[in-house]
Amino acid sequence: MTVYTASTTAPVNIATLKYWGKRDTKLNLPTNSSISVTLAQEDLRTLTTAATSRTFEKDQLWLNGQPESLESARTQQCLQDLRALRAQLEAHDASLPPMSQWRLHIASENNFPTAAGLASSAAGFAALVMAIAKLYQLPQSPSQLSKIARKGSGSACRSLFGGYVAWEMGSEADGSDSEAVEVAPLEHWPQMRAAILVVSAEKKDTPSTSGMQQTVATSDLFQERVRSVVPARFEEMKTAIANRDFPLFAKLTMQDSNSFHATCLDSYPPIFYMNDTSRKVVRLCHAINDFYNDTVVAYTFDAGPNAVLYYLQENESKLLPFINHLFDQTEGWEGRFSKGARAEFDQQFTEHIQNKFTAVLDANLHRGVSRLIFTKVGPGPQDTTESLIDATTGVPV
Amino acid sequence: MTVYTASTTAPVNIATLKYWGKRDTKLNLPTNSSISVTLAQEDLRTLTTAATSRTFEKDQLWLNGQPESLESARTQQCLQDLRALRAQLEAHDASLPPMSQWRLHIASENNFPTAAGLASSAAGFAALVMAIAKLYQLPQSPSQLSKIARKGSGSACRSLFGGYVAWEMGSEADGSDSEAVEVAPLEHWPQMRAAILVVSAEKKDTPSTSGMQQTVATSDLFQERVRSVVPARFEEMKTAIANRDFPLFAKLTMQDSNSFHATCLDSYPPIFYMNDTSRKVVRLCHAINDFYNDTVVAYTFDAGPNAVLYYLQENESKLLPFINHLFDQTEGWEGRFSKGARAEFDQQFTEHIQNKFTAVLDANLHRGVSRLIFTKVGPGPQDTTESLIDATTGVPV
Repeated sequence: MTVYTASTTAPVNIATLKYWGKRDTKLNLPTNSSISVTLAQEDLRTLTTAATSRTFEKDQLWLNGQPESLESARTQQCLQDLRALRAQLEAHDASLPPMSQWRLHIASENNFPTAAGLASSAAGFAALVMAIAKLYQLPQSPSQLSKIARKGSGSACRSLFGGYVAWEMGSEADGSDSEAVEVAPLEHWPQMRAAILVVSAEKKDTPSTSGMQQTVATSDLFQERVRSVVPARFEEMKTAIANRDFPLFAKLTMQDSNSFHATCLDSYPPIFYMNDTSRKVVRLCHAINDFYNDTVVAYTFDAGPNAVLYYLQENESKLLPFINHLFDQTEGWEGRFSKGARAEFDQQFTEHIQNKFTAVLDANLHRGVSRLIFTKVGPGPQDTTESLIDATTGVPV
Repeated sequence: MTVYTASTTAPVNIATLKYWGKRDTKLNLPTNSSISVTLAQEDLRTLTTAATSRTFEKDQLWLNGQPESLESARTQQCLQDLRALRAQLEAHDASLPPMSQWRLHIASENNFPTAAGLASSAAGFAALVMAIAKLYQLPQSPSQLSKIARKGSGSACRSLFGGYVAWEMGSEADGSDSEAVEVAPLEHWPQMRAAILVVSAEKKDTPSTSGMQQTVATSDLFQERVRSVVPARFEEMKTAIANRDFPLFAKLTMQDSNSFHATCLDSYPPIFYMNDTSRKVVRLCHAINDFYNDTVVAYTFDAGPNAVLYYLQENESKLLPFINHLFDQTEGWEGRFSKGARAEFDQQFTEHIQNKFTAVLDANLHRGVSRLIFTKVGPGPQDTTESLIDATTGVPV
């Protein structure tokens, strides 16, 4: 039998202007535009292989080696849209194999612990759509394909680009203008770094889809956020990125994270994603910026307690001595920072920070953090020759 | 020498519609009207004796037996206003002793641990103003005197009435119409109960005065709260009280507490008053209401982690079994609930709740709570013959 395969990797993205609220739950149309930074795939990525063959009997999915259902309406919608685009090609070129009629085998794996609670659905749906688009040799642009990924998981649309990405909410009822666009490529501002503090969550969060609906339906303050706060911030943040203005980018990022969590708290019943550890990290970041009388770090929190800290490479020697001091024993340093680099952080802290820093450093903060992930801004989906499906058998290798 | 003395007690009040934001910091004029429940004085009250004599050499204050400064501008403003009213009386009746010219000795004490972090300034300034007004035999109404107490501490104006009290924000620049009024007397709805969970705070909160100013200056969502959310809720809550509609009263109270804390979180830098224990109490209250498919309890949080739970006497047997189970060993039961009553709570919990309650009960919740205070709606300031100042020596007994 002939098995056609195509593989791609897709990145995680972390919003700096948050997506929270759907105006159409079926199409994943948002109540506001959002902006994100795409993270490097060495650290966080999904690898997906899509395969098809006349002989396949049914659509099948394997996640991290385990068979998973493809039955979710969102996944089905993505497959249906991609098959429709493939069918258009086939209609114009009879020589093409009729893949739009064939079943798909899809294998996917993440290079990061799903336990980390890092939203993997964005990378997952982005990789799914891109792998199948590659398999089908679709000519559509990333923005056009982002509308399909969006139907799988809203924020997935932003993972179709590298660097700095906007999801323009659009206004059409059918979502035809709700797509991701590039704000600036990776090369425009490659110095952006991200340190993820994986915070131990005591309790399962409210799922973001139901949480969003609860906020839209019950928060008195939410309408103000989407009506006037975010639209203004959206333009400001694009300008900050265009100007590589980290202090402004950082302030807007921190304010928008707080604004999003404020509307969660204003929901009824209230939704809490940040915990005491998250709040201590917020206070720490402000204390560090106050210490330097400069903005060297920004925090942002998604629908969970994990903290993502953005900073510029040039400020690594200002921020990392604090992180090294507080999270000395926490997993995540290996292979990222040499013993020599960490010794310098330690020296910097003891010689230049410890005695001058007036805020309280919580020596127990590390207890709430299970893992550190040091990463940076990265590119969009990548083609790869690495395949998760055996081209002879059509099943995972 | 002749020493004139007068003593009064004043209650604590806990807002159900929060005061957060000043439009005039000197006069303590608020950005929105607020509503509170006055709490019973057996549990929480300030006793103040005001004394004056031609022979006193300077204004003096003793708090809980210790000399304290009277120099704060807010306190001086209260004394000045009260002396001015006394001077008016003296101008019309030459037979009155010229107390407006004499120095004051003021002694004050609370019957609750100040460590509890329960805002005692409201009761304190209310008692100060009422004791001096009594000493001066001022004819002004409680609403008129509330404008003086307001200058000492905004929320103090609400402690001049018992029962259910509104602080009408007013519109005049001089604050002449920003005063407390009675929404309903204690007798209208005497069944209201309050259980205060004193939560151990790990860190000093942002002082409410500076916190308010930070929110007014930096929160994008705050203007929406004061412009449209609170005005509508103010009318709804007065109606709920008038109709003794606990489910509505409770929902509005919980929503307004969340709205207030949401604007704190939306401030920049963000302000956090609730901690993980506070959030667990919030979840517990919603879980209890869900369990009964009825609204039996409402939570509210001021500028700190302490939880105040409002409930009706008729629902004591529904709520207290949970509190008894979770806070069995916590201080505060003594003298409030008999062994028999607690045994019934325990029986109710084990027989009718434990096996049917699906939400998670955090067995460690008690670790975050240092003390329980069981109280109820109560009357306004009370005259008392108990005196803290010796009428012969003019100093604390």
